Order: sequence, then C-alpha cells, then structure tokens
Amino acid sequence: MHFQEILIKKRDGKALGRKEIQAFVHGYTLGTIPDYQASSFLMASFLNGLSIEETVWLTEAMLHSGTVVDLSEVRAAKVDKHSTGGVGDKTSLIIAPICAAVGVPVPMISGRGLGHTGGTLDKLEAIPGFNVNLGLDDYKKLVREIGCCLIGQTSEIAPADKRLYALRDVTCTVENKSLISASIMSKKLAEGIDALVLDVKTGSGAFMKSELEAEELARLMMSIGQKMGKRITSLITDMNQPLGSHVGNALEVIESVDILKGEAQPEQQDLLELSLLLAAHMIILGGKTENVEEAVEMAKQSINDGTAFLKLKEIVNEQGGDSSALDEPTRLPGADECHLVKAGKSGYIENLDALLIGKGSVYLGAGRITLDSPIDPGVGIIVRKKVGDSVKKGESVLEVRFNDELKLQDCLEYLDKAISIAEEPVPALQLVKKTITHLD
Amino acid sequence: MHFQEILIKKRDGKALGRKEIQAFVHGYTLGTIPDYQASSFLMASFLNGLSIEETVWLTEAMLHSGTVVDLSEVRAAKVDKHSTGGVGDKTSLIIAPICAAVGVPVPMISGRGLGHTGGTLDKLEAIPGFNVNLGLDDYKKLVREIGCCLIGQTSEIAPADKRLYALRDVTCTVENKSLISASIMSKKLAEGIDALVLDVKTGSGAFMKSELEAEELARLMMSIGQKMGKRITSLITDMNQPLGSHVGNALEVIESVDILKGEAQPEQQDLLELSLLLAAHMIILGGKTENVEEAVEMAKQSINDGTAFLKLKEIVNEQGGDSSALDEPTRLPGADECHLVKAGKSGYIENLDALLIGKGSVYLGAGRITLDSPIDPGVGIIVRKKVGDSVKKGESVLEVRFNDELKLQDCLEYLDKAISIAEEPVPALQLVKKTITHLD
Repeated sequence: MHFQEILIKKRDGKALGRKEIQAFVHGYTLGTIPDYQASSFLMASFLNGLSIEETVWLTEAMLHSGTVVDLSEVRAAKVDKHSTGGVGDKTSLIIAPICAAVGVPVPMISGRGLGHTGGTLDKLEAIPGFNVNLGLDDYKKLVREIGCCLIGQTSEIAPADKRLYALRDVTCTVENKSLISASIMSKKLAEGIDALVLDVKTGSGAFMKSELEAEELARLMMSIGQKMGKRITSLITDMNQPLGSHVGNALEVIESVDILKGEAQPEQQDLLELSLLLAAHMIILGGKTENVEEAVEMAKQSINDGTAFLKLKEIVNEQGGDSSALDEPTRLPGADECHLVKAGKSGYIENLDALLIGKGSVYLGAGRITLDSPIDPGVGIIVRKKVGDSVKKGESVLEVRFNDELKLQDCLEYLDKAISIAEEPVPALQLVKKTITHLD
Repeated sequence: MHFQEILIKKRDGKALGRKEIQAFVHGYTLGTIPDYQASSFLMASFLNGLSIEETVWLTEAMLHSGTVVDLSEVRAAKVDKHSTGGVGDKTSLIIAPICAAVGVPVPMISGRGLGHTGGTLDKLEAIPGFNVNLGLDDYKKLVREIGCCLIGQTSEIAPADKRLYALRDVTCTVENKSLISASIMSKKLAEGIDALVLDVKTGSGAFMKSELEAEELARLMMSIGQKMGKRITSLITDMNQPLGSHVGNALEVIESVDILKGEAQPEQQDLLELSLLLAAHMIILGGKTENVEEAVEMAKQSINDGTAFLKLKEIVNEQGGDSSALDEPTRLPGADECHLVKAGKSGYIENLDALLIGKGSVYLGAGRITLDSPIDPGVGIIVRKKVGDSVKKGESVLEVRFNDELKLQDCLEYLDKAISIAEEPVPALQLVKKTITHLD
C-alpha cells in the first residue's frame, strides 16, 4: 500500500487500521517516508484526530521501533511515575528513592526541560558527576541491585518516537492528546515496567489548561496502558502555581533533599503531600499494600528513618555522582546574586502564575530557549509565599538567584506579571483534583 | 514573525493576514521554510480552509513570486481560456486560432496532462517541430504580431506555485478549491491577460464531481480575478463523457483541424458547440460585441472563411512546427494497430465514462503514469457513439489506436467498464450546465 493512500484516508477523516499505522511508523523510521509527507500526516492526525485504537497502534509501533527492556529478572513489580510537566515539579527525585527504599523497584527513563517546564535529567545533572547516559545494561543492573536507576532516553528506546517528536516540535503538531499519549506511553512501556503512576498536571503552568482536558489525557494513556497489560493510576493535580518552593536545577535538588530529610518548610507542604501520595500509589501498584493511608505511612516512614535519603545517595553514587554534595549544598552549582521580588501591597496571594514563573526561570538560564542552548544549573527562583498566604507590603514573595544581570532583567519581565495580591482572604489551591485508579 | 506562529494560527482555524500569507510564500520560495513545515501548513489549510481573502492573498503572493508579463504594448484586450481539465478536451487548439482570427489576442500558457486528463502542451507537441518552450520575449512578440502564442509555464512564471504544486502533489493536498484556484489564477494572471473565460468541468471525468462543487470553484476563481481587476466569465460544462470524438495527442490535433475546417462529424457536435461558445465569450470579453449570438456567428464565420485554420497554421509555423502536417495527417505521429470495442447488445448508449476512458488512454501511452514517463503521441481512443446514440449489437463504440499489445490490455481493463447500454432511449447529456458572467 502506498503511503499516500494512508495519508488520504486520514486527511478525509477515515479510521486507519493497525497495518496502516505500522506502515507509517516503519516507513518514517526507515526513511522511505520523507519528512514532508510525515508532517502532512501528523497535521491531518492532529486536526482529524486519532481514535483510541489508532492511538494504541501508534504507541505499539513506536514502542517496537526499538528495544523493549526486559526486567523480568527483577521479580518484584516494577513501577514508574510520569508527570506531564510543570514548574518546580521535582517529585521524581523524591519518590524514586522513597519507593526503592520501601522495596518497589523504579526503572525511570526521563526527559529534559521542555518549554517553560523543568526536566528531571537537567536537575540530576546539577549534582556533580551524575551520569544520566548509562547504557541499558547498567540500567538493568542498577534496577536489579539498588532498586532504581534514573537515565535519559537512549537511542535504543522508541527511536521512532524520538524522530517523530522532533518533527512534531517543528511542525506545530505537539499539543494533541493522542500524539502526546502515544509518545509518552511508547517510551514508558519500553522501560520494562509493570505499572505506572501518571501525574497529569492542569492549570496555567501545565500543557493541559483545563481539568477536563487533563482527565481526557489521563484516561487515554490509561486505555493504552490497559491494552498493553499494564496497571495505571492517574492523579490530576494542580499546576497553577509552582510545586513546592524551589524552581531551578540545583535549587530543586536542594529542596528534594530537604523533603527527604524530613525538613519541609510551610511553602513546601504541597510538594511533600503530592510526593507522598504519588509514592503511595506506586507502592500500591508495587503490591506492598492496597490501602492508600497505609502506603502513605510507609513512604513517610522511609523519610523518618532516613532510608529514602540514604537511597538517593546510593543512586547518586552508583551513577557516578558526588553524594556528599547532597549533605553540603554549597558544593552544588549556585548563583552569586539574589534579587528579591516584594509584595507591592499587603493582603493575600491570589495568583502566583506558574507559566510566567516557569518562563522567567527559562530566561534566567535555568531552561533552554533553543534546543541546544546551555543551561545554568545554579540559577532559579525561590517561592516564599504560596497562593492563600497572607503577605505584608514589602515582604519577599520571590527570591531570584541569578548570575547574569541581563538575564535577570529578562526574567523579571515575566515575574512582575506573575504575582497578584487580593485584599480579602484567598483559599489555598486544591492540590489533587482527582485520582483515577481504574477506567469504567 | 516566526513561521511557526503562522502555522499555529492556521492549524487552530484562525484567519491569516496578507503579510502572513506572503511570509509563507516568500519563505518557501527562498527556502527558509523547509518542505516539512510547508506541507504541514498546506494540510492545515486543506482541512481548515482558506477564506476568499486568504485565497486572494495566496494568489497574489504566488503571482508576484515571478514575472508578471506586461502585454500593454498590445492595445486590444487580451483574453485567455482555462479549462479545469477533462478527457478529449482540445478546445484550446480550436478557440485560440478562432479568437486570434477574429482579432482578440490570446496569450496562453498551458500545462501538461495531469492524471487521467490530457494537456494542451502534449497535444501541441504531437505536431512535428512545435516548440512550446519559447521564452517570454518570443511569447510577447507572437501575441503582438500574430495575436496568439501557446507555451508552457516558464521558470519565470509563478515559481512559488510551481514548487508548491509539486509539494501538494506528493502530500495529498491537491483537491482543495482554494489551493486549486490560487494555483490556476496565479499562473493565468501572470500571462498578461485582461480577461479570462473559465471552463469548469463537472462529471465523472472532471476533478469536480458535482455541479455544485464546480460552481463553487468557478465563483472562487471569479472572485480572485475580480479583486485583481480582471473580467471573468465561467461556463460549467459536462465531463461525464469525452468531449468530441478523439482522445489522444495527435488524434486530438486531427479532430481540432477537422473542426476548424468545418468538417465536424455528428459525434463531434458537442466539441464544436462548446468551442464556439467559449470563443464567443472570449470575443465578448475582447470587446468585439456584447451579444452571445453575434459572437458565436463571428466565430463560425472564421471557420467558414478559413481564417481560423489559416491562423492555426500560422501559429504552428511561427512556433517552429510543420504546418503542412495539419493538411496531411499521415505526417503526424500515428498508431499501427486498431482494436474495436463493440456494443455487447443493441440499445442506446447510457454511459461512456470519461474517467475510465481517460485512464484507459493514459495506460495506452497517451498520458503519463509517473511524472517522467514518456508519452506516445500517436495512440488514443476514438469515440464513435455518444451518450443517447442508438447502437446495434456488434457495432463499434470505441476504436483504440495502439502500438503496444501489453498497453492495449491495460487500457481495455478500463474501457470494458466504461460503456453501458440501455434498452430504452436515453437523452443526450446537457453540455453547458451554467454560464456565469458576473458575481452577485
């Protein structure tokens, strides 16, 4: 069958079969389908949509374009977590060691920062020596021996997704639930997991602006996982304000360490709460208990008895990093200067826009403006007040840690618009909007 | 403005401005917008549509991507005709000399066969020595001196359309009225015309299958022409059966000569009628009269007094061709063999499917299967009965002139399905469905 016939079917809104979707993915990976035909197909899929079946077949074809890691040698159920991306979202650094400490192996292949959102790999690389580019053999070995490994997507993992994602990025076909789901799930299913917890963000700093959209995306990914025989739990969570207090790579490592040491500050309570809940659902999927309260207690216990923090240090050591930097944050990259963004009036924090703070942090140097721009691991923003907090005129709301005055000015253009203060009390934001443990 | 922002707007169904459309056309022509982004934009335009304004701006930008021929030195109003393509449609070869003979200059830049439809350039090249690749200076000289020139699209004429058309062809974004209109009109407006007659075909052998679609396309092209200050008349005409009797390149030259010599056979009456009507509307737009009957009489007169045929010979001579071949058809390319397709039963011709006969002629060698396949100018199909004609069992309906037995077999697979015969009388097909001389 000629690819043009497949393209015409999708253009005309008809449903494609499994073999047609496979022909697209294989042809594009082999190079027999050129970029300009693939991008035309992606736009037709974006606008006319893909059915759940088509999305499953797309996931399947991208998954099998590369290696599907076999972790069957690790007897326990292997569980990962995936977040759709946010600002200040460093839960991976907290829950991976918690779960591994509790005995749930976590094989985790993560990404870099995208747009205004941060990426786990960039945060890990703020730790001196940490190597996210381990091969799959080392990855399997660490999951088996220490219960966790945190790496980036290797060339063997879903190469078709890697090529298609790059093409989508430059042809404005990213923001489609089917394409997003297939991309995420093809990578996650290649890791060798048995189950997955999805943290689907919603709000100004998330890719899904409404709760409804976030829930649709969650259910679509759950359908795919279910058809592939994996257990999936989804949490729909708030991303209107940054999660926790620290935004920026080394700063988020520091905050994660604080959480794992049991030293959460008031403005970090949301991060602690969400981390415990995500870890709890992973612990449940890992078969350690069926009860959420019990699972949360197990996670808390790993913090209180120090095993979770020890596990993080073990992971860092095994992946070539200097774990002593976790005890002495001054050994992490830092920023020389600090600028305070203060409340212009007294009242209650009404808005602390995650999108604007995320963009501000990118322009500060914490994220990438273009794909190959270098990042400054030491810079970032610390949130001292959260939505609902009372504030006095002149009090610091944000602390900007910067190394370059020009970048600070770029950043402040966003931060100046990010804060609004109300005169009347404002309720705190609801952190977890919904938990979906199974599809109807 | 980044092209991605323009692409996102069109993807999201928003209207683009003139500058944005220009940025697309210029960027693609210059190569700063790569194929894969352009094809994504074309698919978004195909599916979300372009408004009349956007279509006008697209036409304008493609028109000005190259040379717009200045024929102001020719004082008379210059009029061309464009057909959206059909089977056996050789009216250009008939009406160009008629109009030139009557004193209406015809600057005509034509195309090659596309899909199952024939192309004026291929037909002209069946005349030994005829050169369709004259430069624009020669083209202007001939329009000025003999009132007509028939050439192909040069690299100076709407180069953006040429590149975009090639991309549309391989990305399944051809069949969209806005994109079709902009492509046609950008080329026609570059010719240096003052007015244009559009022959928009409808029926099985046309690109527009329904009369309604054909009329929409006609009105869209008329809107564009009007905004560009050109007068346009559209005829919506039948393309359910081949026009006239001959299908194939040299065969169509022979039939055109027969018409110009006043020797039309009964099965060629539709061709004669349509040619006179199209020429009449060109004569009206050329300012020679305002009355259709009078204009038809002027066209007929040019046939009866021999001036139209003499003009064709003059054009052929001036463009390097051997005009004596028009008097002695044996000097044109021919076919050695003839196969008769006979009526399987007595009755009345109910259907003579133009699409199937067109495809049959392509497989016979009269058209191109791929862009660079050679064509055999001598082969073709002669229609001996038209829809509505009575036929006796065993009488010839089609005569296939062929040079290659294998190609004949390919051709017959289509022809066998092309004819249907009814027992009861069948009315002849209505040739002209609608004439639109101005928009409301």
